[in-house]
Amino acid sequence: MNNFVFYSPTCFVFGKETENQAGAYVTRFGGTKVLIHYGGGSVVRSGLLDRVKASLDAAGIPYVELGGVKPNPRSGLVYEGIELCRREGVDFVLAVGGGSTIDSSKAIAAGVLYDGDFWDFYCGKAHVAKALPVGTVLTIAAAGSEGSGDSVITKEEGMFKRGTGSDALRPKFSILNPALTQTLPPFQTASGITDILAHLYERYITHTQEVEVTDRMIEALMMTLVKEGPRVIEDPNNYEARANIMWAGMMAHNNSCGVGRSQDWLSHQIEHELSALYDCSHGSGLAVTMPAVFSYELPHAVMRFAQVANRVWGCPMDFANPEATAKAGIKALQNFLTGLGMPRNFAELGAKEEDIPKLVETLCYGDGGNGTIGGFLTLDTAACTEIYRAML
Amino acid sequence: MNNFVFYSPTCFVFGKETENQAGAYVTRFGGTKVLIHYGGGSVVRSGLLDRVKASLDAAGIPYVELGGVKPNPRSGLVYEGIELCRREGVDFVLAVGGGSTIDSSKAIAAGVLYDGDFWDFYCGKAHVAKALPVGTVLTIAAAGSEGSGDSVITKEEGMFKRGTGSDALRPKFSILNPALTQTLPPFQTASGITDILAHLYERYITHTQEVEVTDRMIEALMMTLVKEGPRVIEDPNNYEARANIMWAGMMAHNNSCGVGRSQDWLSHQIEHELSALYDCSHGSGLAVTMPAVFSYELPHAVMRFAQVANRVWGCPMDFANPEATAKAGIKALQNFLTGLGMPRNFAELGAKEEDIPKLVETLCYGDGGNGTIGGFLTLDTAACTEIYRAML
Repeated sequence: MNNFVFYSPTCFVFGKETENQAGAYVTRFGGTKVLIHYGGGSVVRSGLLDRVKASLDAAGIPYVELGGVKPNPRSGLVYEGIELCRREGVDFVLAVGGGSTIDSSKAIAAGVLYDGDFWDFYCGKAHVAKALPVGTVLTIAAAGSEGSGDSVITKEEGMFKRGTGSDALRPKFSILNPALTQTLPPFQTASGITDILAHLYERYITHTQEVEVTDRMIEALMMTLVKEGPRVIEDPNNYEARANIMWAGMMAHNNSCGVGRSQDWLSHQIEHELSALYDCSHGSGLAVTMPAVFSYELPHAVMRFAQVANRVWGCPMDFANPEATAKAGIKALQNFLTGLGMPRNFAELGAKEEDIPKLVETLCYGDGGNGTIGGFLTLDTAACTEIYRAML
Repeated sequence: MNNFVFYSPTCFVFGKETENQAGAYVTRFGGTKVLIHYGGGSVVRSGLLDRVKASLDAAGIPYVELGGVKPNPRSGLVYEGIELCRREGVDFVLAVGGGSTIDSSKAIAAGVLYDGDFWDFYCGKAHVAKALPVGTVLTIAAAGSEGSGDSVITKEEGMFKRGTGSDALRPKFSILNPALTQTLPPFQTASGITDILAHLYERYITHTQEVEVTDRMIEALMMTLVKEGPRVIEDPNNYEARANIMWAGMMAHNNSCGVGRSQDWLSHQIEHELSALYDCSHGSGLAVTMPAVFSYELPHAVMRFAQVANRVWGCPMDFANPEATAKAGIKALQNFLTGLGMPRNFAELGAKEEDIPKLVETLCYGDGGNGTIGGFLTLDTAACTEIYRAML
């Protein structure tokens, strides 16, 4: 196991009706003037935004609002949010929504206290040393941003999708009410489950030997999704299944199960170009990307893929031919995702074969790239092309 | 799943030679005058105490020392530590040792800022609202106190062993270097593994339905111990196995796998009387206690004990007779513990049949008790007697 530092100081407030405690938690963590940041109409229509406002009112905390966050959140709204916070003297950013809204909120929170262009944090020119405190009211189990110090933003000029990470961006508190996810359309629920599974696979695929404790924890969270995923697609109102998925989504990405080991993140990098270009959901892009990436990686990690196939997917271990078990596990993953309603290829995703050269170019050379991408393997443009073509 | 709040703000610094960062972390968390609190000679003989002092010196942080913590830490030394901190203007308590040293440090940290008798926190008369910041340099994977807000102290007058808990007692940082545990005698290593397993069983035995995510996480940590435990007994210098156990020990008790569900803790209550009376190690007491308690509980939780038997201990599920599977799992646990060198009955523990009435009396009526103890089941004196007698 490698040396590591693990620091997850977020206070998680979990369960029914917990959104009504938002105001009290803003006060506890020192907020006196709030930006409520959110996305589209669903948080308005569901009455969630009103409940959060009522909670802030009850705590005597004034606020301003900025809606309009889109999936794959854009830099334009971040600049707008930074200006608004400075103008209004905001000292706390409250995200009400999913991963996109939280990521946008983190970008605003970092940008407000930074003299330069906030994009510096995302293109690697600067590290986030400080940020306004952020709180979240989560509406979808997916990105894990509610428990992480990570944020991904798409720069409109060039459509570059890039991420940053810092302990300064970890939310002070995150309110997780599984009931809020019951009204999600099945496709969004399935996209979220896929994203959580991807966060687990990205940590599972490692060069580090002797990491039984984190292997077992990752497998535990995967098995939870394998059991509970189909249940929420079958019955969207199953609170208990929603609750298990929601806690798994946080645990999958606060990194308690990824510490002390090299990680992969090739699937995320390769997918990011798809959702940036086609504006598909991150999860649906991952559903198509993961089997292609894992099949490419398989010869370099046969026993690891056999292990997850056996322990999580219940594939019998073929001791004479572990590669057969490993392949069966990737097939089981793909079947599971398809069963949730996720796409399995470019056509179902709405991606186009003729765009592959452009995808590879942006992936490997965009925004300062040097022609390769790095993860469990280092991939050049030929390898990336092969992986995209495997998704056809 | 029940509503819950989960807050684990401790910064965990994990890996080789990390004790040399103690001074830097005290500074990061605001300490300017430190009490170094420790136990017996091993931290002195191993040179660990000198390395920690050198790290404080390098950071320019003055300190005072208080050694002498014993297993099942006593109230007398806590009073002494409180006085010392007040006299010397200490503003940070640094525990260098195992669970006993950390628990004693937490008691001192709470007591310094409290006007009354610190024992008020342990007998239920007061809640710890504030405490001096605590840091830890852990020397044994066992109690989980490095990541919890809990503390257990034995009051010398009457030998009452009682616990308290508060987020204010969670360490600011905990330094976990698995190499520091390599010099432990095998019996202490095994006691620690037993304690970790007990923390997991206490959370596993629940009345709460539909808790797949935390069930799976608990099982993951149990399976880690089942694999790695025998390896460290076989080869005490196996750093990788030590590392997996150490992270499992923290995760087992910071409660990330115990949230949203009722817990048991009958084994701990029943054991506490044994280690208080005989001064045996907490782990060896638990090794004798757990099989007796679980066998008593079994008829009330057949499928739960069958689940852990099947998933963790690899006992084949007997679909015609789940109780047989459940029993096989308890037997497998006992065999595992015995294989590590733990005792299996009163005689091997050094406990005496004739003390049972006294044990039951203290357990059920001591320090304000009402004649029963509560956990997964409510037990009266007859039930407690039956359980102690099953350990003969």
